[in-house]
Amino acid sequence: MAGVSPTPLLKDELDIVIPTIRNLDFLEMWRPFFQPYHLIIVQDGDPSKTIKVPEGFDYELYNRNDINRILGPKASCISFKDSACRCFGYMVSKKKYIYTIDDDCFVAKDPSGKDINALEQHIKNILSPATPYFFNTLYDPYRDGTDFVRGYPFSLREGVPTAVSHGLWLNIPDYDAPTQLVKPRERNTRYVDAVMTIPKGTLFPMCGMNLAFNRELIGPAMYFGLMGDGQPIGRYDDMWAGWCTKVICDHLGLGIKTGLPYIWHSKASNPFVNLKKEYKGIYWQEEIIPFFQAVSLPKECTTVQQCYTELAKQVKAKLANVDPYFTKLADAMVTWIEAWDELNPSGEAPAKTSNVKAK
Amino acid sequence: MAGVSPTPLLKDELDIVIPTIRNLDFLEMWRPFFQPYHLIIVQDGDPSKTIKVPEGFDYELYNRNDINRILGPKASCISFKDSACRCFGYMVSKKKYIYTIDDDCFVAKDPSGKDINALEQHIKNILSPATPYFFNTLYDPYRDGTDFVRGYPFSLREGVPTAVSHGLWLNIPDYDAPTQLVKPRERNTRYVDAVMTIPKGTLFPMCGMNLAFNRELIGPAMYFGLMGDGQPIGRYDDMWAGWCTKVICDHLGLGIKTGLPYIWHSKASNPFVNLKKEYKGIYWQEEIIPFFQAVSLPKECTTVQQCYTELAKQVKAKLANVDPYFTKLADAMVTWIEAWDELNPSGEAPAKTSNVKAK
Repeated sequence: MAGVSPTPLLKDELDIVIPTIRNLDFLEMWRPFFQPYHLIIVQDGDPSKTIKVPEGFDYELYNRNDINRILGPKASCISFKDSACRCFGYMVSKKKYIYTIDDDCFVAKDPSGKDINALEQHIKNILSPATPYFFNTLYDPYRDGTDFVRGYPFSLREGVPTAVSHGLWLNIPDYDAPTQLVKPRERNTRYVDAVMTIPKGTLFPMCGMNLAFNRELIGPAMYFGLMGDGQPIGRYDDMWAGWCTKVICDHLGLGIKTGLPYIWHSKASNPFVNLKKEYKGIYWQEEIIPFFQAVSLPKECTTVQQCYTELAKQVKAKLANVDPYFTKLADAMVTWIEAWDELNPSGEAPAKTSNVKAK
Repeated sequence: MAGVSPTPLLKDELDIVIPTIRNLDFLEMWRPFFQPYHLIIVQDGDPSKTIKVPEGFDYELYNRNDINRILGPKASCISFKDSACRCFGYMVSKKKYIYTIDDDCFVAKDPSGKDINALEQHIKNILSPATPYFFNTLYDPYRDGTDFVRGYPFSLREGVPTAVSHGLWLNIPDYDAPTQLVKPRERNTRYVDAVMTIPKGTLFPMCGMNLAFNRELIGPAMYFGLMGDGQPIGRYDDMWAGWCTKVICDHLGLGIKTGLPYIWHSKASNPFVNLKKEYKGIYWQEEIIPFFQAVSLPKECTTVQQCYTELAKQVKAKLANVDPYFTKLADAMVTWIEAWDELNPSGEAPAKTSNVKAK
């Protein structure tokens, strides 16, 4: 095989979305894995600043001026001064799959010392089915060397399409501010060699740091909410997207996997700053989570857009009493769907998978 | 520490239950870990045969004659010529915790080459809480070096009591006969360094090969059904117990963990024999599992016995149309509870945990 690079999987069907406020030097380490792909960089903060991208990468970059120009008044649904702005990249992509990663995430090593190609593992996760209806004790049954165990119903062994692949982090774990404060030195050193489906009906904390999804199946649910500048809350953008995405996947019969791949999360953000951003989320979530646990979507909702619009309605009806913020958020959810549909008219299908010959 | 053995955890509060038809030579390998504990050996098959137990183990042994003598007519609920007979051991134990293991299971090694003390890991699992209401992406949050991740509701971080710890198997995976036939050489070599809670509302295939539970919390639900001699089915004993246990744990707010520890499963049973035992289970489970997924226990059921008796009623009402066997099984479930209560009168509390001084 020397000298022959195997074609990267889904090369023309996947965009890498990176929100950032700085030069993207971190891409150097990812070059062997990311260079074949197209990058969508969403520049947060001061649009007059120039973000340097290492040479040789194929990318498009959007700053706040671009977002305002492209979306007009609907740009209000895209957060500013918060990595929640990344979801703009999901909207402008025309690819079937998205991988999103934070710019403080580096290549991790597996226990044998080998560099982990995180994207390749995400692609494996997302191209194999998920099993949300029954737990397989040997984890992902579609992985080499594994299968469904005794007692797993045969009628469920086909699985369902996987919409989301949620990857994890070595080194700095994704803790909230209180846990960061209490355990400033805790590092995640445990490499758990597993991928699994999060069962139907179970919510999980979705982290946006190392995340892949099928944009065609679930894209419009991947709205990262109103965070940061002018908003009472931060660091709940990915959580919000995760709760919405999970209930919609459950409703539509789609799967979400978590586990491998790991990235190396290089530095903990400031816990004091985080506490300020998070503290409303920390007590709001005590009401938000029961809301999502109880959400029921009518069976008439058969598209992600319909589900999401219905969810916005229920957020307004049932969370507005928690804080007026949720009324604003519900409106932004509707705006997001309008903007999504504007940029992705239904006639225009996303890029097809590579096994379809006519492209 | 040289020469000083630390006191084994729960030494006087845990029984090891082993169903067998042969001499227990496999205990030699477990000696360093099991010798301090009391063993309950349930001899299956011909009661006139003598089962040899290696010297130095503290044990009691029951054969079919003993079971008949102790339970009288109620002995009909205990299976014969099937490892389902092991549940008799749960009933006669007076301890708070049970560990049960098959006699073809040996000590496995962790990736560093160290012998795994399976029992010690089960005890850790069962003495720390479980988290069935929300998924923690870094797995068991109570393990050293891990915690709840960002976005995990604080109100759920106390967890719930753990009733069951389900361990896994290296080498021969626990596959059904069709999978054994299709993949005769597949071996499980993947050591997944994780323990996790099976979420509320999700069923799993519980394997009885390497299993620990809190008898006080869930014992009466651990009935392994009618299998083997005179029954139309085998190899579904632990599955049946798992389905019943899971819905009762969900109802009572108890947790079930799966993952570590691994044992080394030495030999695959004959897939042709297994197919004969399993084939009814394989198609019945397509109706049994939806039944268990839909089971709802009334809130008046606040003890395991009440839940189990109610479940027996629902089995009779809703599964009898699958096969007359389920009527017989439902009756046996009631008999099992009667026998359990006879041997465990409610005044007589199980052994207390060691932090209670008065024993």
